[in-house]
Amino acid sequence: MGFVPPGPAHSQEHLVSLLNLQIDPDRLHRRIAALAEVGAIEGGGCARLALTDADRAGRDLVCGWMRELGLAVTVDAIGNVVGVRAGRVDGPPVMTGSHIDTVRTGGRYDGNYGVLAGLEVVAALNDAGVTTEHPLAVAFFTNEEGARFAPDMMGSLVYTGVLALDEALAVQGIDGATVGGELARIGYAGPAPVPGAVPRAFVELHVEQGPVLDREGTEIGVVESVQGISWTEIDIRGTSNHAGTTPMSLRRDAGWAAGSIIAFVRELAQELGGDQVATVGRIEFFPNLVNVVPNRAVLTVDLRNTDEARLRLAEARLAAHLDALRDAEKVDIATRKLARFAPVPFAPEMTARIERHARAQGLSTRRMPSGAGHDAQMLAAVCPTAMIFVPSVDGISHNVREYTRPHHIEAGARVLLAVLGELAGATEPAGERKP
Amino acid sequence: MGFVPPGPAHSQEHLVSLLNLQIDPDRLHRRIAALAEVGAIEGGGCARLALTDADRAGRDLVCGWMRELGLAVTVDAIGNVVGVRAGRVDGPPVMTGSHIDTVRTGGRYDGNYGVLAGLEVVAALNDAGVTTEHPLAVAFFTNEEGARFAPDMMGSLVYTGVLALDEALAVQGIDGATVGGELARIGYAGPAPVPGAVPRAFVELHVEQGPVLDREGTEIGVVESVQGISWTEIDIRGTSNHAGTTPMSLRRDAGWAAGSIIAFVRELAQELGGDQVATVGRIEFFPNLVNVVPNRAVLTVDLRNTDEARLRLAEARLAAHLDALRDAEKVDIATRKLARFAPVPFAPEMTARIERHARAQGLSTRRMPSGAGHDAQMLAAVCPTAMIFVPSVDGISHNVREYTRPHHIEAGARVLLAVLGELAGATEPAGERKP
Repeated sequence: MGFVPPGPAHSQEHLVSLLNLQIDPDRLHRRIAALAEVGAIEGGGCARLALTDADRAGRDLVCGWMRELGLAVTVDAIGNVVGVRAGRVDGPPVMTGSHIDTVRTGGRYDGNYGVLAGLEVVAALNDAGVTTEHPLAVAFFTNEEGARFAPDMMGSLVYTGVLALDEALAVQGIDGATVGGELARIGYAGPAPVPGAVPRAFVELHVEQGPVLDREGTEIGVVESVQGISWTEIDIRGTSNHAGTTPMSLRRDAGWAAGSIIAFVRELAQELGGDQVATVGRIEFFPNLVNVVPNRAVLTVDLRNTDEARLRLAEARLAAHLDALRDAEKVDIATRKLARFAPVPFAPEMTARIERHARAQGLSTRRMPSGAGHDAQMLAAVCPTAMIFVPSVDGISHNVREYTRPHHIEAGARVLLAVLGELAGATEPAGERKP
Repeated sequence: MGFVPPGPAHSQEHLVSLLNLQIDPDRLHRRIAALAEVGAIEGGGCARLALTDADRAGRDLVCGWMRELGLAVTVDAIGNVVGVRAGRVDGPPVMTGSHIDTVRTGGRYDGNYGVLAGLEVVAALNDAGVTTEHPLAVAFFTNEEGARFAPDMMGSLVYTGVLALDEALAVQGIDGATVGGELARIGYAGPAPVPGAVPRAFVELHVEQGPVLDREGTEIGVVESVQGISWTEIDIRGTSNHAGTTPMSLRRDAGWAAGSIIAFVRELAQELGGDQVATVGRIEFFPNLVNVVPNRAVLTVDLRNTDEARLRLAEARLAAHLDALRDAEKVDIATRKLARFAPVPFAPEMTARIERHARAQGLSTRRMPSGAGHDAQMLAAVCPTAMIFVPSVDGISHNVREYTRPHHIEAGARVLLAVLGELAGATEPAGERKP
């Protein structure tokens, strides 16, 4: 049986299902629980900020599993890890994967699920003694979250050649450490070159991290695009002064300017409507004392939209508000782009394939955008790519209470198995092949 | 010559001036500079947060000067230091003083000036061999700033019996240390009882910390009252969630609620007008990450007004805004009063005395309220009290750029000398007394 390249629906899916491939739900849940023990925090979540000791421990654990499953593990110069299962022919692998770093108060599914479900697909192929036509790769990318080092999705940015290695290695984190220094320290500055080899196709399975599927009771989200993201750090300088003796009219209050920005971006999101979101997640005042007008405030604004023109409009409106603030409060305002990604559409033939396999398995589906950034959006620039979402209860994400029900975890892995099996050209075990 | 009690203008001032008492400007400036070396920070300011090692070093320096000047130094249970110069009769001293703790980015004059000018008055009396009828005391009170431990003016609150000693000692600072623990650690948990002895009168000399005198070119501010102060800590709890995937309408964003409060208190101050001021000086977000909706925000609101009814109105308006936020954003909001002082009027006979002496010295004067809290407002509850202000260049305060010109420093000290000399009943040196 020859390889069937990514394309419109055809009868290949029946051949795959005839192989009786199946995931082992217990094995998948056990791996998720074991990885969640690394950097575990109160409430059942994880704190494995990129390139910390906890991240190293998580990486070591997953690399061990990869080797147990017979994968050839390589680490590249930005610390991306790729485990490859050989196919019947050489050449680019069909790749799945995600990330295993977390935010400071992360859940146990975000990122980890996609990587471990990828390993479960490999295990299912191993169990059935199936060799695919093409190699199959499971990857985890460095610093997807961006919670310690900006930009987020750093590993996949370097893998796909969008971000230069030297630039990424020089990035200084919120604790002052550099990416290069931390990679070397934890032993994950690998020898594999970047940009990495272009995969045949890429599929990322992920929890939704939003409330849409859970609210609707839909089992599988077929992700058609990823929202564009604009992160800006805003550094405001005013004059610190005694809070009791400085008339309101004479103030250059950096703290008030920050508050005005927080209020403004909420109004902006409401006014633009649609799927526009806007968040101020980080703030710091200086000197940060109850009775001193702040002379400096630093805050971040996170703007997202699936439409690039609308996202640019939101950015322009924010810039105009900053100009107005400079005039009104006589403060100095400097801005720095921490991250900027245009919205990314996924390959229609890939989304159609996911939808077809999910429905063939009797699962309800919904086409949707991703509100979060994902490594898949970087891979989409180099190969046919799409994503599979499963529901997040109450949409809670980046929080220890993040939760996805076991049957949804399993459903997503089954769809991933079918999609990857078809893309890689799964065939019957040697010796049992039909004539 | 008998004691002339505080009262309306009379001819006593002429007797005092006949004594040829005079301050030594160089000695006063040298002491100010020497104390500023303790905890010195870049830009010429000081960081001597209450009960830190730097505060201890500052205390040791000033206590040494007190002893050199022949003062009997006592330390009370909250760490207030009082140096007493004996009078011809026993009984309550006429007291002057202020504080020597600073905010984290404080100047060198705030507080320190009043204490060191008090020492200069003592030195001038010593130089002239003058004995006063009544004892003269120079005091510095613990933790006036409140930058490490709340409430501010803690030492004078305990000295005057408004705040219980046990309660003050148990206060935990922003770094987790307690007042009692830190007093013991730096060796300033003294044996003198609190509440302390009631002075005969109290006069505090201080830099204005605001722009009014400097703008007008007025040399001496005669302080008639102190603004009431209301400090509230607001602790907001929402839900942390992914900044990209949570629709605006489903958010419980503690950070946005904090921003709304910052914007509101500015509007409130503008709407109430008059001398109402409102400041958010301190804020913290949790988890404080660019792509996570904050699940918690803690901020402080500082409201001040010279009119108690207006201050209460401001507090009520703030409370109503918090109620509206609870409803609109479905956040939980807890508040804690960090400090609350009603406006304090000073004794009219004391302000008249200051005004008379300043004018007799050819200085321009202005009656004004104090926008900042001062230890004098606590003493006002137990004895006739008033304050003398000198100009702050550009009104800059709680900032390393705080500055008062040397001739204003000297003018204030000369007025203090005349006022204290009159209140204490300065007489000619023994053996030279007129019949």
